[in-house]
Amino acid sequence: MSGVSRRAMLAGAAATTALLGLQPAAAAPLQAPGVYRYRLGDYRLTALYDGVWYLPIDDKFIRNAGGAEVNAALDAAFLPPSVLPISFTALLVDTGRRLVLIDTGTAGQITDTAGSLIANLAAAGVPPDRIDTILISHFHPDHIDGLKTKDGAKVFRHAEIWVPEPEWSFWMDDGNQSRASGAVLGYFRNARRIFHDIAKEVRRFRPGDEVAPGIVSVPAFGHTPGHTAFAIHSGGMSLLVMSDTVRNPYLFARHPDWQPLFDMDGPMAVAARRRMLDQAAADRMLVEAYHFPFPACGHIARTATGYELVPVEWSPL
Amino acid sequence: MSGVSRRAMLAGAAATTALLGLQPAAAAPLQAPGVYRYRLGDYRLTALYDGVWYLPIDDKFIRNAGGAEVNAALDAAFLPPSVLPISFTALLVDTGRRLVLIDTGTAGQITDTAGSLIANLAAAGVPPDRIDTILISHFHPDHIDGLKTKDGAKVFRHAEIWVPEPEWSFWMDDGNQSRASGAVLGYFRNARRIFHDIAKEVRRFRPGDEVAPGIVSVPAFGHTPGHTAFAIHSGGMSLLVMSDTVRNPYLFARHPDWQPLFDMDGPMAVAARRRMLDQAAADRMLVEAYHFPFPACGHIARTATGYELVPVEWSPL
Repeated sequence: MSGVSRRAMLAGAAATTALLGLQPAAAAPLQAPGVYRYRLGDYRLTALYDGVWYLPIDDKFIRNAGGAEVNAALDAAFLPPSVLPISFTALLVDTGRRLVLIDTGTAGQITDTAGSLIANLAAAGVPPDRIDTILISHFHPDHIDGLKTKDGAKVFRHAEIWVPEPEWSFWMDDGNQSRASGAVLGYFRNARRIFHDIAKEVRRFRPGDEVAPGIVSVPAFGHTPGHTAFAIHSGGMSLLVMSDTVRNPYLFARHPDWQPLFDMDGPMAVAARRRMLDQAAADRMLVEAYHFPFPACGHIARTATGYELVPVEWSPL
Repeated sequence: MSGVSRRAMLAGAAATTALLGLQPAAAAPLQAPGVYRYRLGDYRLTALYDGVWYLPIDDKFIRNAGGAEVNAALDAAFLPPSVLPISFTALLVDTGRRLVLIDTGTAGQITDTAGSLIANLAAAGVPPDRIDTILISHFHPDHIDGLKTKDGAKVFRHAEIWVPEPEWSFWMDDGNQSRASGAVLGYFRNARRIFHDIAKEVRRFRPGDEVAPGIVSVPAFGHTPGHTAFAIHSGGMSLLVMSDTVRNPYLFARHPDWQPLFDMDGPMAVAARRRMLDQAAADRMLVEAYHFPFPACGHIARTATGYELVPVEWSPL
């Protein structure tokens, strides 16, 4: 190695340390980049970690299961009681011609322990301006907040934004908002905060449509009225992007009938969850979901009482 | 953000991209850094990924199970038949006063898909010269090769190297080597290649000894004659470093009685494996193992027929 390239490398190492917050180990305040790459046929996928929300939950969090049952499920996963870890991982799809981002993270507007998506996108070498297409699964804040900064500026300035038509119709309807209260009213207001000044640009798709080359939207209503999953196909391979159909797998894959308060129509969400888990297990599909533990990708195995997520093994490309 | 700091950040981003091999996504040839940090009491731990060896295996790979059984276990983990993924993850322990590295990776001398430990150590902000202490679990090449470059130079120039006394006695004995053949003879020769010119510096510990502050060695003989695990204790928390007692969890936690050819004394290795899995499950211990999927850390749950690794959920520090 020449002196020059060695100096360049040391400078690079120092810059890396600074940029990624990777201090010498004695200080070591921050986690390494939450970036994981994998291939799907000719497409290159990148899991982008945004963080995790440690949500305190009470006996009423699952409509049809008691607090003791839920704590037993957390305990079986070696998790502390009465706190649900809600992990956030967005998916970047590089088709070779377009960069497509599915959902956008929390932008640090939900909890202090999330909001790293843009830093992780940078660690993956992609400035936000390079994103061509954004696909939104549904309008809950943790999926759409990343579209804007806290000050209301667009984050992905050159991206076409595509949203499910029934999701738009529901959340942007003033009559629906007038009948809402509590957290749901907050979601209505937040959707307006995000979309009010870009409404004309936002493109709407019918769930079931192909929304980008090789990316087909899949209706999965129930969690919200227009909640949508996606199937990505390339080179004879497929990935099912389950969105919020299944969230923390230790609760909702193992106990697919549980109806958390997050699911606006509990029975309809259970039907979508079971339909998708059944298909993934039967077809041995590669699956991905926004709230699975990072890198949020694996397979679904059927068990005697429910389903298990079998995570992919971290590997080089 | 000022113009200057913005420029610095962009320069940093470019350097990061170059250093970590993180090309813009359109090229994207390499994986993101395999670095994961977590805390144990007052200690800071860093999992450092070295890569994975996709080892073709035949009907004789497990002495006491047939190829069909092994392929069924791979299939249950959504892995292809007749290939065992052997992941390598070393553990860096920052006690606040010392940097201790447990095992050293393959140095790219075993397979093209491994050898990234030093690059990942750099991504974690730690030059090899900063390592104070190296603990070796046993003398198989994938654990000791990282001590030297291919040219025979020391990689961790300022580190004390500690090895298990019974491991040293076995592998450095000329009589034992004279009776060896095949792969095992290769291990003897490799141990001499690594240690011949640093033998006087190498320090030996008796398994059971405390080998660094809060790090106690644990005899786990069978895989090799002096194979050693470690228990790390800090601030009332403990981590069991299982070394090679359990390797790929889908084979050897689920089927603890299986005896792969790698285990020199199969029944003794099974006894060590069961003892350690039993203790980990009963005490709900945090565990780590060199060949678990990255970040190689989790808990052990007992099942009707064996054990399951429940990986830790990736989280910020």
